[in-house]
This record gives sequence, structure tokens and C-alpha cells, in this order.
Amino acid sequence: MEAELAAIVGADHVRADEGALLTFSTDATPLERGRPDVVVFPANTEEVAAVLRVANERRVPVVPRGSGTNLSAGTVPHRGGIVLVLTRMNALKEISEGDLVAVCEPGVRTIELASAVAARGLLFPPDPGSQTTATLGGNVAECSGGLRALKYGVTRDYVLGVEAVLGSGEVIRSGGRLVKDVAGYDLRRLLCGSEGTLAVMTELTLRLMPAPEASGTGMAYFRELGDAARAVSRVLASGILPVTLEFLDQVCIGSVEDFAHIGLDTSAGALLIFGQDGDPASIERDMARMAEACEAEGATEVRLASSPAEAAEVLEARRAALPSLSRLEPLTILEDATVPRSRIAEMVAHIQEIAGRYDLKIGTFGHAGDGNLHPTAVLDPADEDAVRRAHAAFGEIFARALELDGSITGEHGVGLVKLRYLEQQLGADHVALLRRIKAAFDPNGILNPGKLGS
Amino acid sequence: MEAELAAIVGADHVRADEGALLTFSTDATPLERGRPDVVVFPANTEEVAAVLRVANERRVPVVPRGSGTNLSAGTVPHRGGIVLVLTRMNALKEISEGDLVAVCEPGVRTIELASAVAARGLLFPPDPGSQTTATLGGNVAECSGGLRALKYGVTRDYVLGVEAVLGSGEVIRSGGRLVKDVAGYDLRRLLCGSEGTLAVMTELTLRLMPAPEASGTGMAYFRELGDAARAVSRVLASGILPVTLEFLDQVCIGSVEDFAHIGLDTSAGALLIFGQDGDPASIERDMARMAEACEAEGATEVRLASSPAEAAEVLEARRAALPSLSRLEPLTILEDATVPRSRIAEMVAHIQEIAGRYDLKIGTFGHAGDGNLHPTAVLDPADEDAVRRAHAAFGEIFARALELDGSITGEHGVGLVKLRYLEQQLGADHVALLRRIKAAFDPNGILNPGKLGS
Repeated sequence: MEAELAAIVGADHVRADEGALLTFSTDATPLERGRPDVVVFPANTEEVAAVLRVANERRVPVVPRGSGTNLSAGTVPHRGGIVLVLTRMNALKEISEGDLVAVCEPGVRTIELASAVAARGLLFPPDPGSQTTATLGGNVAECSGGLRALKYGVTRDYVLGVEAVLGSGEVIRSGGRLVKDVAGYDLRRLLCGSEGTLAVMTELTLRLMPAPEASGTGMAYFRELGDAARAVSRVLASGILPVTLEFLDQVCIGSVEDFAHIGLDTSAGALLIFGQDGDPASIERDMARMAEACEAEGATEVRLASSPAEAAEVLEARRAALPSLSRLEPLTILEDATVPRSRIAEMVAHIQEIAGRYDLKIGTFGHAGDGNLHPTAVLDPADEDAVRRAHAAFGEIFARALELDGSITGEHGVGLVKLRYLEQQLGADHVALLRRIKAAFDPNGILNPGKLGS
Repeated sequence: MEAELAAIVGADHVRADEGALLTFSTDATPLERGRPDVVVFPANTEEVAAVLRVANERRVPVVPRGSGTNLSAGTVPHRGGIVLVLTRMNALKEISEGDLVAVCEPGVRTIELASAVAARGLLFPPDPGSQTTATLGGNVAECSGGLRALKYGVTRDYVLGVEAVLGSGEVIRSGGRLVKDVAGYDLRRLLCGSEGTLAVMTELTLRLMPAPEASGTGMAYFRELGDAARAVSRVLASGILPVTLEFLDQVCIGSVEDFAHIGLDTSAGALLIFGQDGDPASIERDMARMAEACEAEGATEVRLASSPAEAAEVLEARRAALPSLSRLEPLTILEDATVPRSRIAEMVAHIQEIAGRYDLKIGTFGHAGDGNLHPTAVLDPADEDAVRRAHAAFGEIFARALELDGSITGEHGVGLVKLRYLEQQLGADHVALLRRIKAAFDPNGILNPGKLGS
């Protein structure tokens, strides 16, 4: 097969050496790995289509990927086969101010697009934590979220058009440059979040927005997480849609302070970080109203950043949450159970109870505005019992999230690691339907087999 | 079959009398009709599922519908069978300010939801022209647009969760109350715009937003439509995302003035109506900047409404466009070819050239912000040659829209009337894929057969 693949993409772009096979055996998910047979780097849509035709004929698994920053083992080639790496397809083809769209290949990194459009006074809102490394193809395949989802939505809300190659090697285009287009089923949004199981995306047309003029940032400490959750409800009920509304629980506040020494109040039960963007007058008004809402719910301290440096310091507390937890133990399991925002306090209380019962260190931070929580366990992978306890604890956490009308995954994807929980959320009939949809796109089941739709 | 259906929904809710069969033989699309065998009005999900199981066993077509306001003959039962009318399922079950969602049955009228949430200081943005009559189920099935799409998106952007019955009678739920939820393929958005061909939606969970405090409205006349189009580009390039950006061409200006006598300048080549919502200070600033942009592109007159009465008068010009054209001749064909907004002037020039060549009266108005045009032909249906010319002209209009990277339909749907153009836009492989997806949801092809996915 290697010779056949080399004839398509060139011998330089087919790798089966130990280094390549090792590099592409994992993504950002801990503990999961799978050895591919060969790694292929196509340069354009025609090469992708030709590779898929070969794989389809031979019934060889194909795992498409970009930078592999996903956290659900969505790009681990656990059944071997071809890893199709799309990072050579990294042309940012067009930024149109007139149509407010960008057209690019899937290998463009998210930060590159964000920076390029920012330089023209535009905004591409999706900002997943991995944005400096992650590719747009991966972001669309996983329907990445980020910190601005409450106000601006997630990746799916910015996918206007997609060119994609089906499992059979056929090339389709869905949508284009239009906000309004209802010709046919909405395949571009079906592909968004399909985790490489339906098609390989080869070109993306993404919606842009005018960039906001300015932004403001503030923070508030609370005795209890419940107080912070009520402040969130009060902010939203007051008619404000903030751009940032993030929280850290007590475990995270402590670990961030130990790590970054930025003077956080480690006696607080919760820290809420809030922000708004727009024009300066609206920001000032919204920030004042959010501060009032926090005070009304018993915030022990509220601070509005009065300079960009102060704002950066506040945001640093949120950004440091994951790295600070990660350095406590060699293994970090970062999850993304999600609940309606009115149930956040209840859910975090469940997480803390479960962590205690399983004798685990779990800190929870996340997106208070959209209910997307990141319970994060840190442990020693050599401690096999702790690993077992962590899996059991997360099983309970997911079950609790579902009881509260939530989801097993808000933004990380199902991948390999959450497939076992999917039927609990969707039911057997729904999962069977996913399989039939998968077969419509990929009749021989070569695309990322054993994951979503399998 | 009638007895079997009566056993499910009750004899009062099964109609096969001439009056019912006639009423439900059409929707809002001119010239298209089809006689159903029976009309059924279910009261809940279980009844819908039971009706579909009966129909599926007997291979009887089922055409789900609400108020039937669609303009693409999407709910015309041209193959007979059951018309499944969902207007009895009209419970507005919940409005949650905390989670910013509404939960409702499909038969709730759009205006009812919009009014109920407005009374609580919230906004449901999608505002299709038919909103006072149309149901939310129909809006979701058609992925309706409206006047606010540039700033707020279309119906799909507000569908968080769906309960739906497949062709086999199986009930699935996709999504729920969460902005972030990536567990499984995004079926709620696939169902949005699927035109009753994949499943019957029985419950909707819709995203709400805080209502803007205020709004502003203005208008500008231009000598040529090209000037107005450049003004639109200038507005967007200046970083403003207006809530309203509508235009009328010269034909529409004339017909509105003849009809409504509101003092429009009928010598103008184009009228642009623009508006913003938000807080008063931002509105004032944005309105001034939009007025400047119009002047910079040669507007012959710019007016900002200084009172709600004046604003209503300006908006009346846009609202009167369709009724004023409609009264010119007995038959009105309202289309929705859509192009990238940077190509609007070019497209309208094509439409005017085509209208002249086919000796037709076609006025064009529409959404300048999102490129969704409404070329509207008025003619006498007794003049068979004119009807033939109109069909040929629209065929050319769609072909031109596709040449300009546009779509045959921005918001009206494919339905029966545009199915013949679909392959031109999507290609044969894509259309074949739609058929396979349809089969995954509706293996016996009973749901709205002969339309999308057939």
C-alpha cells in the first residue's frame, strides 16, 4: 500500500518509520494510544480523495487529523491503518471583508486565522484552549467551544461552507459564503462535530464578525460556589450577555495561587471572572452592572481591571487553572461534563462529593455562562487503583450530568474515551440512527472506525 | 385506514371531508396543489409515533405541516396520503430566564413565542415574514430566515434541542438546553431545514437572548442600486453589524408608493433601510455612522427616524413591498435567490435584464445584509405564455445566482418547486448522499415523499 500512497502524495509524504508511527499514535488524551501502519501527508483535495479511494478499496482504516490536540482520543488510530495528517493543507486562501468570510484549508491553525482577521479589524470568535496549536479542520471536526460561547456561540455557528471527501472518495461541497442557504440538508453543520467519522474536510468557509472596539474584565470572590452561580443568573437576568463568565472552585483557586503567585484569596469558595466587549460606553455600563450583581449575591470582593495589565492578570487566573492542576501529579484527566447553567452549583457539589468518596483530587473550573464544566482529576498513573477510581468517578459524574439535563461532553467530543457513555445519553434508537447516517457517508466504515457512528 | 387513525387520535381529529381535503391540498405557494386522502390532527408525541407506525407499515405518504405558510410547496401533498397537522400541539411549555431557553410544541405560532418572551425582557430573533401565522415547527423544518439574520442568524442558530419521530415511528431526542453539546452527530441542526422529509418534530428547545433596550431606524435613497450596495459594504467594513439592512429596487419603490402613499421618492433607483438595536448610546453612534456611509456613497437623501412613529413609517416601506407588488396582478411569484452580499448589485442587474428579456414585471427587494434577494414576478395566471416565461426567467435567475456563488434558496426551502434546480447547485454525488441520509431516517420513504432527499 505504501507504494500506492507514495504515487499519490509523493514518497516524501508517506512515513512508516518508527518515529512517525510513534508520533501519530497519540493525541492530547492521556493513556490512549494506537499504532498506525502508515502516516500520509496529502497536499490537496485530489490527493485526499485518491488516498481515500485506495483505503476504501482495501478496507483500511483512515484517521484524519490536524495537530491532534483533542482530549477524547478522537484521533488515536486504535485500529491501525492510515493516519491522514492535514497540516500541509494550510493555505489561508481568502479573507473577505465585504462578505465577512474566510476561506481556508483545514491545516490552518486557529490562532493564525484569528490573528490574520484581527489585523483587519475582524473577529473569528471560537477560541478553544488549544487555539495556538489546533488546526481549524480539527476545530470544525470536533465542534470546539471556548470561552466566548455564551455570547458568540461555538465553532458550528461559524461554519458556512465545507468541501469534504466521503469515505468512497467522492468530493462534495455543502453551503458556501452565505448566512442564508437552505438548499439541501445542512451537511456542513452535520460534519461539524462528526469527529472525522463521516468525511475528510478539505476546505472551510468560515463566518467572521466585525471586531469589538474594546473589552473589560473583572473578578469577584464568593464564600460558596452557590453564591457565584446565583450571581451568574442575576447577570443574565439583568439583560447582559457577557463575553466572559468563567469560574474556579476552591481547589483550583488554591492550585493556581501555589503555581502562579498572583495574590488570589485562597480562603474563597469560588472565583468568578467576568468580561464584556463592545464599545467603551456599553462595556463600562455592563461591567458596573455585573459588579453590582456579584455584590448583591454576597461577593466578598469585586474588582474591575482598570488597565490591560490588570485585565491580563485576572485572565491569567483562569488560564493557569489547568497547568497549575497538571503539575500536582503526573496524570491529568480533564473532562467536560456540561449542565444547564442554572444547575452549575448543584453539579459542582456532586463532583466534590464524588471526588471525596473516591478519594481523588478533582478541581473544577469552566464556563459558567454556558454550563460547560471542566472537572479535572490529577493522579499518579502508576497508582493503578487511583486510575480505576478516577474512571469510576467520571462515570458517576457523567451520569449526574445527564440527570441534570446535561451532556457527557460539551466541547471535547465523544472520541474513543466517551463512546461507552453515549448510549446512556442518546438511547439505543438514536445510536442506531447515528450508525445508519455514518453508513450513508462512509459505506465501508473506513473513516475513524470504532468511534462515533460505529 | 381512517378507523385505525381514529383509534389513535380520536374520531374528531381525523378528517376526510371535502372541506378538509381542499384546505390541506395547498400551502402558500401559488399554482401547486395535491389532494390528500386524509387529514390527521395528533395531540402529542405518542399519537404522532402511532400514526407514523401505521403509515410506515402501509407505505402511505405523510406530509407534516403547521400553518402551511411556506412558499416552496413543501407541504403540498402531491402524492396524496396523510396530511399530519401539528397545530393542536401548541403548548408553550416553559420559558426559562435562567437557562435562556424556551421549550415548546411545534404548533406554537412564532409570534406567540416572540411576544411571550418579549414580555419577560427576552428576544427570540428569527422573524420570518409569516411570523404572525407560521408555527415554530414549520420555521424549524424550513430553517426560516427573516430580517435580522445578518446580526442574529437564522432559525438553525436557535435550535438547541429537538424531540422527533422517525419514519419508522421511533422517537429520538437530539440536544437539549445546552449551548455546548457535542455528544453524537448534530441531528437537531440536520433536522432544521429538512422540510419534513426526515422526521416529525414534536418538541423544540429554543435559545433566547436578552432583549435589546432600544432600536433605531433610518433610510437612504440612491440613484443606482450599485451605490446602495457599496454603502452596505462600507457599513460592514466600518465594523457595524446592523440589525436591519434592507433594500427595495426602483420597481418596488414605485409599487409601494402607489399602494401606501407614504411619500417615497419614486425617482430613486434604490432605497436602503437600515437599523440598529442595543443600548441607546451605541445605537446613536451606529446610526450616525451608517448615515455617513450612505452619504459617502452618494445617497441623494438620508433620514434617521426621530420617533417610533417615524421608524414605523420607514419599516412600512419594506413591509409593503410584497403586498404592493401582489395587488398589481392576480399571481405573485416570490423567490429567494441568494448571493454573497458583495454581489447584490450585479445580481439585481441580471434580474432586471432577465425580466426585460422575458417581458415580465419583476420587482426585487430583500435583505441587503445577507444577500437574500426576493425577486418577485407579478402576472396573470390566465396568461399561460406569461406563466411559461416566468418559469424560464426564474430558471435563469437561479443559474445566475449559482454563477455568483449563491444559492437557489436562502430561506424558502427547496420543497417541490425548486427540486429540479437542486442538482445544479449541489451536484449529483451530493444529491445521492442526501438520498442515503433520507433513507437512514425514513427507510420506507413515507415522509414527504418526492421532495428533498427523493
